[in-house]
Amino acid sequence: MNQQEPDTMPCPPPPREHLTNPATRSALLVQHHMLAAVRQRMHARGFVEVLPPIIGPVTDPGVRGSKQVDVDYYGHRYKLMTSAILYKQASLLAFDRIFCIAPNVRLEPPQTMPTGRHLTEFHQIDVEIADAGRDEAMAVAEDVVVHAVRQVVAELPGELEALGRDTGAFTETLQQRFDRITHATAVGDLAALGHSQNPEAEIDWTGEAMLSHKAVRPFFVTDYPKGSRGFYDREDPDSPGVLRNFDLIAPEGYGELISGSEREFEYARIIARMRETGENPAKYGWYLTMVRQGIRRSSGFGLGVERLTRYLTGLPCVWQVSAYPKVPGVVSP
Amino acid sequence: MNQQEPDTMPCPPPPREHLTNPATRSALLVQHHMLAAVRQRMHARGFVEVLPPIIGPVTDPGVRGSKQVDVDYYGHRYKLMTSAILYKQASLLAFDRIFCIAPNVRLEPPQTMPTGRHLTEFHQIDVEIADAGRDEAMAVAEDVVVHAVRQVVAELPGELEALGRDTGAFTETLQQRFDRITHATAVGDLAALGHSQNPEAEIDWTGEAMLSHKAVRPFFVTDYPKGSRGFYDREDPDSPGVLRNFDLIAPEGYGELISGSEREFEYARIIARMRETGENPAKYGWYLTMVRQGIRRSSGFGLGVERLTRYLTGLPCVWQVSAYPKVPGVVSP
Repeated sequence: MNQQEPDTMPCPPPPREHLTNPATRSALLVQHHMLAAVRQRMHARGFVEVLPPIIGPVTDPGVRGSKQVDVDYYGHRYKLMTSAILYKQASLLAFDRIFCIAPNVRLEPPQTMPTGRHLTEFHQIDVEIADAGRDEAMAVAEDVVVHAVRQVVAELPGELEALGRDTGAFTETLQQRFDRITHATAVGDLAALGHSQNPEAEIDWTGEAMLSHKAVRPFFVTDYPKGSRGFYDREDPDSPGVLRNFDLIAPEGYGELISGSEREFEYARIIARMRETGENPAKYGWYLTMVRQGIRRSSGFGLGVERLTRYLTGLPCVWQVSAYPKVPGVVSP
Repeated sequence: MNQQEPDTMPCPPPPREHLTNPATRSALLVQHHMLAAVRQRMHARGFVEVLPPIIGPVTDPGVRGSKQVDVDYYGHRYKLMTSAILYKQASLLAFDRIFCIAPNVRLEPPQTMPTGRHLTEFHQIDVEIADAGRDEAMAVAEDVVVHAVRQVVAELPGELEALGRDTGAFTETLQQRFDRITHATAVGDLAALGHSQNPEAEIDWTGEAMLSHKAVRPFFVTDYPKGSRGFYDREDPDSPGVLRNFDLIAPEGYGELISGSEREFEYARIIARMRETGENPAKYGWYLTMVRQGIRRSSGFGLGVERLTRYLTGLPCVWQVSAYPKVPGVVSP
């Protein structure tokens, strides 16, 4: 990665300057081809694409200090979607395998600006698979990423070259299976690198950047501690306190691309997990009514569209791959 | 169309009932294939797909009494997008031909519920073409609709049959070019049918339904009077008061599928049109800054995803083709 010091990372310029920049144009072409490749692969694998909602009475409670956005819906307090998780589980009432390209809004704290990988408005390729365990979801995630990288490298060599992206960076990604390490192993690796990572928490930005920088292809981190994630990541029945979940981390410092998990699907477990994570079940009316009547076992994941585009393009900041970027704390179109 | 009296049109049931209904499943499969067909066609024609924003400082002022939704964005008053129009024009700074599948939110008055064709949250296939006149945009619109109908009829005969949709209804659509009438002609046709339509206004719901019911294939209505549309539909320089725009109306009572136009692109004209339509130019800061520095001539249109799905499926209400329908005035997930 073309590394810059966080505090020198520029803000997005106005629309004209941004949209007439050849790098923006190349990045948007990469994104266009990448999404076409993802859809092609998902369709071929029997996934049905559904259109996700963008507002609703309740949404993913989120993590890491990002704030939800309220809207007034005919006098009722609704939220902009922070992720499609609740609707993905619901969609499996209609189909065995679904995906959507979901827009999300999260008001991240302005301090996340320097990570170079946060947009307040972003998209996820959201996938959910009925009757699937974590391994199946991870296999789909790996397959989709590899396919998207392969297609973009094959179809847009000129754009990647114009962006200064050496496609040799993808050789390992395309040829080798992605490694898997547990969160506990990651904590140990970070200790060996001199970074103290709380074993009971999400891997912090610094730790994630260190792990990402020393990797040569994307790798999975599994089994995060319970406190680090939402109520819908299933707790391992054989290892209380550990979640049956995974992240996919890109190499070269690009950081997290994917979060996924087996899902909690039992009413009592979901209520218990909501309470543990400080969520009030009363807010989740329609969802819990549905859950009480029975939802399907499932696994799934969300793949950040702009983050994968950034990895493909090799651009330093994620806003550079968005046509109308909104970065934390900055007022933009 | 399986006609029902407006006041007996049911509301969407809860998610479980809706998503396990075989008709919903068939409709969502139709939509999935329809969108795949649209993308295939647009990609083949050289259109770049961009991801639209869902919030911004300003949005399409809208028409017909629908209300915009405010959000608080780091202390600034933003809006949920009611259409992607401003961003479509901006996108032509990067590419000659763009499209997006844009989610929109419009709080329609509850009185629109009985039309059966309003959702407060819906999607548009939004297309914009640089250096194109109205005829070119209409040709693309017709081509996309015909291609989508042809693909769905070819790929999903079983689903259409299960929905009770006689595919003979599409014969005319697939074989004949779409007719074009002007708004003035439509007003005259309605008078002949005994319906008094204001010649200076948008065609009313009743009038549109009458025209739609007597048609056997989609048809264009062009040249709407200025008062009926937003500031971005270009006024005909040779016919002041008349817009260089068009709608596409589906047959069998399904009503409007598309609205499109040549666009105003000159700063002074846009300011004048904003003032005429009661819009305060001061609200449009980023957009007018961009326009003043020069934007491209263009034409484009928005095609209602759920409306086209409804026409394909033959279902009486547009909410039946949405996975998570929100209808005017009703609180739903």
